[in-house]
Amino acid sequence: MTSQQKKAVSFLGPAASYSHQAVRQAFPENDWEYNPVVTIGDVFDIVQDSVSPAGLVPFENSTNGSVVFTLDYLADRNDRYPDVTVRGEVYVDVHHCLLGHKALNHNLEDGTEGSGTCTPTATDPSPPRPRTKPLSSLKHIQRIYSHPQAFGQCNAFISTYLKGVEVFDVSSTSKAAEIVSGDTTGTWAAISSQLAAEMHGLDMLGRNIEDRTDNTTRFLIIGKDPEIPREGDLTMPSHGQVGTKSMVSLTVPHDSPGALAKALSCFEEFGLNLTSINSRPSLVQPFHYIFFLEFRGHLYDDPEAKVRGCFEKLKNVAENWRWLGSWRTCR
Amino acid sequence: MTSQQKKAVSFLGPAASYSHQAVRQAFPENDWEYNPVVTIGDVFDIVQDSVSPAGLVPFENSTNGSVVFTLDYLADRNDRYPDVTVRGEVYVDVHHCLLGHKALNHNLEDGTEGSGTCTPTATDPSPPRPRTKPLSSLKHIQRIYSHPQAFGQCNAFISTYLKGVEVFDVSSTSKAAEIVSGDTTGTWAAISSQLAAEMHGLDMLGRNIEDRTDNTTRFLIIGKDPEIPREGDLTMPSHGQVGTKSMVSLTVPHDSPGALAKALSCFEEFGLNLTSINSRPSLVQPFHYIFFLEFRGHLYDDPEAKVRGCFEKLKNVAENWRWLGSWRTCR
Repeated sequence: MTSQQKKAVSFLGPAASYSHQAVRQAFPENDWEYNPVVTIGDVFDIVQDSVSPAGLVPFENSTNGSVVFTLDYLADRNDRYPDVTVRGEVYVDVHHCLLGHKALNHNLEDGTEGSGTCTPTATDPSPPRPRTKPLSSLKHIQRIYSHPQAFGQCNAFISTYLKGVEVFDVSSTSKAAEIVSGDTTGTWAAISSQLAAEMHGLDMLGRNIEDRTDNTTRFLIIGKDPEIPREGDLTMPSHGQVGTKSMVSLTVPHDSPGALAKALSCFEEFGLNLTSINSRPSLVQPFHYIFFLEFRGHLYDDPEAKVRGCFEKLKNVAENWRWLGSWRTCR
Repeated sequence: MTSQQKKAVSFLGPAASYSHQAVRQAFPENDWEYNPVVTIGDVFDIVQDSVSPAGLVPFENSTNGSVVFTLDYLADRNDRYPDVTVRGEVYVDVHHCLLGHKALNHNLEDGTEGSGTCTPTATDPSPPRPRTKPLSSLKHIQRIYSHPQAFGQCNAFISTYLKGVEVFDVSSTSKAAEIVSGDTTGTWAAISSQLAAEMHGLDMLGRNIEDRTDNTTRFLIIGKDPEIPREGDLTMPSHGQVGTKSMVSLTVPHDSPGALAKALSCFEEFGLNLTSINSRPSLVQPFHYIFFLEFRGHLYDDPEAKVRGCFEKLKNVAENWRWLGSWRTCR
């Protein structure tokens, strides 16, 4: 199959991002052309405008929580993405590395790397211990670059081994590695992936520096085709699929007592287990929300008409609501 | 009353922060000593340790959504804040200004400030228009500093008048103003408050640059006394109080179908209107959540025993749950 015949999947770049890893897990490189883009909004734009039939966006991290940008695009407050639906999900185990340039006079034994514990204080008498030690001296590091989500996942390592180092938020962990690869002082470091170290020729100063062993990011595959998904069209891992999920967004009348509970009881009534709830400002009026609900069930694989039954009820309770997709999942 | 006799209220500083404004709204300066601290966690620590009887933390913004740091402290995963409860709420209308130094050769008529619209593109044919124009030329601005929440509230102004300017996230809008006050190049600007302009002697380059007129931040007052609040103890605006609210956090068994819906139906059963839902990772296992529910009702002003009735039911449904406070509110 030539590159011209390949379908494209768009994702949050640059190359070596965790999104890139997720794409490699779900879309075989032989069949798909990888198209890294600059923002999550670009992925939605490209899918809505049929430039790519598939896109992949980060949805939540098991340590850090939801990705609000993705929720805001799914909220689609300006009706820009009427045809975009969720078609699948991908889980990526996230292992962060500290990348940079080794110190010229590197000596791990000089005792300055600390004992592997944060300094206990009156207010935090037992700070978390980092899981790993630096692979190399970090005395020379004066700046660290990464995405805010990654900083949030590496608190113990940073507060133990990089105390007082200036922190710079950038748009992605791979961007951080790119910036540090251009450093001529040798004093900058990035929290990024092993893939990024290889791509940018950086030294590995720390490995698996994340706070938790079970640090996982869930990505959503989005597509446009509103019809029943054809198996194999959007490639998903076929092994280990254990169930189905769907997502809806909804708003409820601001001044109606119990409206949200009533909306949620539609799911309970039909035995549809809610697996996540998120909310974002509706921007219709202050402190009015758009809710995102995920539940076990599939609109097009619904022999007992549970999902359709729930949606019929939802029409009477919600102010606005929208089916955002149904998919098969391995979790 | 001397300063020594005053009770202290701790809040997220530095001086001139929006938290500072919120404190001034709710705690009369004659009776209270204002104690700005560095992080939201410091506010919780100080209240738990009885250093201050009251604290104030940002909870959500009407444009940008929840403050996850505050949710994470309320989650109290390590049982550090067993005695801290929510005692009130304060709403602050947020008006952002662009602060910096006026250009030496300042000419608003040179046509480079644009037409007041973002450039329409194929993917965004009708970008939002900013509500206000700069008060002064912005051609010389090369960097803007602010808190990520503030950037998120000023998208239209930034993408219209500050295209291509380098963006720096800092810990607070008031910190941003402080940084810019130390700029010797005259090319940095901060998104911050009018109060911060006055305190740091900065020029006002733009006023009311937020995207929406109804941009409001809600703050929570926290305290430690678990008993029935004595009126006037934690000072709250007494005018215009229209009702009560309470907050609980809860987790539900991961593998129990419908457990979340069942927990929520406890509120519906007793006619308690849910006003907000938030969730954060529980960090017990990946993709298991702690939920935060707010509802109309007060544990200690509960003549029909609705709140107590709901809590009794909740005990049977939730894995863990905790009452986080009840308070009077003007909204």
